[in-house]
Amino acid sequence: MKKDNLKERSLDLHKKHHGKIAVQSKVSIQNIDDLSLAYSPGVAKPCEEIMRDKSLLYDYTSKGNMVAVITDGSAVLGLGNIGADASLPVMEGKAVLFKEFAGIDAFPICVNTQDEDEFVQIVKNITTTFGGINLEDIAAPKCISIEKRLKEALDIPVFHDDQHGTAIVVSAALINALKLSKKNIEDIKIVLSGTGAAGNSIARLLTDLGATKIVGFNKLGVVKKSNYNMQSFVEQTLLDDSILKDTNAENLEELFEEADVFIGVSAKNIVSKEMIRKMKEKPIIFALANPDPEIAYEDAIEAGAFIVGTGRSDYPNQINNVLAFPGIFKGALEAKAKNITEQMKLASAKAIASIIHEKDLTTDYVVPSAFNKLVVKRVSNAVKECL
Amino acid sequence: MKKDNLKERSLDLHKKHHGKIAVQSKVSIQNIDDLSLAYSPGVAKPCEEIMRDKSLLYDYTSKGNMVAVITDGSAVLGLGNIGADASLPVMEGKAVLFKEFAGIDAFPICVNTQDEDEFVQIVKNITTTFGGINLEDIAAPKCISIEKRLKEALDIPVFHDDQHGTAIVVSAALINALKLSKKNIEDIKIVLSGTGAAGNSIARLLTDLGATKIVGFNKLGVVKKSNYNMQSFVEQTLLDDSILKDTNAENLEELFEEADVFIGVSAKNIVSKEMIRKMKEKPIIFALANPDPEIAYEDAIEAGAFIVGTGRSDYPNQINNVLAFPGIFKGALEAKAKNITEQMKLASAKAIASIIHEKDLTTDYVVPSAFNKLVVKRVSNAVKECL
Repeated sequence: MKKDNLKERSLDLHKKHHGKIAVQSKVSIQNIDDLSLAYSPGVAKPCEEIMRDKSLLYDYTSKGNMVAVITDGSAVLGLGNIGADASLPVMEGKAVLFKEFAGIDAFPICVNTQDEDEFVQIVKNITTTFGGINLEDIAAPKCISIEKRLKEALDIPVFHDDQHGTAIVVSAALINALKLSKKNIEDIKIVLSGTGAAGNSIARLLTDLGATKIVGFNKLGVVKKSNYNMQSFVEQTLLDDSILKDTNAENLEELFEEADVFIGVSAKNIVSKEMIRKMKEKPIIFALANPDPEIAYEDAIEAGAFIVGTGRSDYPNQINNVLAFPGIFKGALEAKAKNITEQMKLASAKAIASIIHEKDLTTDYVVPSAFNKLVVKRVSNAVKECL
Repeated sequence: MKKDNLKERSLDLHKKHHGKIAVQSKVSIQNIDDLSLAYSPGVAKPCEEIMRDKSLLYDYTSKGNMVAVITDGSAVLGLGNIGADASLPVMEGKAVLFKEFAGIDAFPICVNTQDEDEFVQIVKNITTTFGGINLEDIAAPKCISIEKRLKEALDIPVFHDDQHGTAIVVSAALINALKLSKKNIEDIKIVLSGTGAAGNSIARLLTDLGATKIVGFNKLGVVKKSNYNMQSFVEQTLLDDSILKDTNAENLEELFEEADVFIGVSAKNIVSKEMIRKMKEKPIIFALANPDPEIAYEDAIEAGAFIVGTGRSDYPNQINNVLAFPGIFKGALEAKAKNITEQMKLASAKAIASIIHEKDLTTDYVVPSAFNKLVVKRVSNAVKECL
């Protein structure tokens, strides 16, 4: 009998099969000849070929379809810094999503150090098996520098999903939301609450998409030049790069004045109905704090929001990373891309948005379902076309 | 049409499926409810449980049946130090053997450093996912210290197959060979050629099995107290521990005088027919250099050898590690053993030997077939009974 309690049901599922992944052999070993081909002495030949030309790893091994899901367990879901061991169920889950949504083989590696240099050094030295690296649940701001350093050091795609996955899906949702509100991205004012890893990537991708007026807010208050020195490197760089615009606003409420869009990747219940009422017509609210958003869906609607998206599957317009990363890696692996570029992220956002025909768009349907088979196909093709 | 060329056929096999392993999802993700259980938000619960009690990794993740096949590529097959990248086909092959012979999930990790300290530090920090570590194709003598350091540092079994797998199967073969030659292990003189990683483990396991007179030979000549200072740490320790006995012999030929058994894990063609003719009655020859043994099977027989074993599948009595490691890890994982002990290795050797009924033993059949389904069962049970 199906239990209603999600926690109990999840424990049961995890215990039933002892975890969620297995390793499969693609060759059958039934006799001595099979053994001689797949193992010694025949296996020496592909080794020799790879010695001669390293790119043949993609022909003779599973590298080309194998992604590492790597964490240090420092920022897992809403649980925080739970360490390498306790993070494994999440990483196995991510590996399952890669397989189920995109047919990609993915394997969890939980690195038991929280020292940035050591983490980078370990990951750099275990990449032979992998055609790509999905970084997962690493605390900000080090996740930004870790990704940057690994991208520079490695010749396979490195992608920190918590930063860019959210940014891509938010961008897709915004593209469609703006079609319904009949506004241009160049003209709108966007309030971004949360300027950590995800917020940074969102601000940058929306700027690439054409946004010109994004203002930021975080735990320290409004992000602006007058409190530049209080801010961390991430916010300072966002201001320096003019990705976040300077403002005279003193608090979140003032930032909402005349805003068109609110995007929150921050904390629960920090947005009030009054704030939404200060926005321009047809306010768009993406309140993505999980599981409790910056403002409840119902409250946002009641305050006059035109479109509301959250991170939750039990409300309309779920901003779900699973719309992005499977197709992105599929495209990158198939094209043997050396890295995942800003252009690919932009193309992915547009591809996700394009799944819903304009005539089918409604305020409750600006992002496609994660189970729409077209998503992976469109996203992976969009990524490949960038090369 | 089947090609006769092993090398070409092996390349074809490796290219056909792009390598030999895949990652399988043990859960199906068909809808939002599946997603909520296997991933966010349901997955938080097993994470919390593991935070509370690390041993629950064995309940809620795939750790309990997952082995890492880890190398630094420093001594791969007969190819030598080919590095991490080129070694991947061998490591995938080993993973396939784990799965096909014992149903164990195994995953290749090629560590791109040949610095011992760095290797140990990297391996120590990526064990969350794994219930056991199979070290593979690491050069001697560092493989001995690497294994020792990892065994001390970790609470999961660590096993360097090149050392102990060979030792276990040689021991099994010798147990049965001595039944046929009607000699007692306590009484026989054993000449061991090759005193590196495998030779060291062979000498120690045969001693545990009751052998009292093992003499050693290596590239530098006879291993004896008078050339103690020339020898490396491994040989010195074998002499210090009285595992290898001191001798007055000046060369390999003199070592063969009155010997009952020759075991070679060294180099091709170093044993002559004349040497075998100096041995006692019913000489037992295990010439395991691969692919070309210390003396060819035919030559050994012609010189009067009673029983001849090699590493090759195209001759009788193949000494094949695949008889040992799948069952050893299966037993160790099922029993959640913290390490693989000398007692387990001894029990495994006896279990492998016991597969062939005494009435079925012949000089050409002292080791069972790798494809005999009883092998894994008996070995894994023997390992479990040691706990």
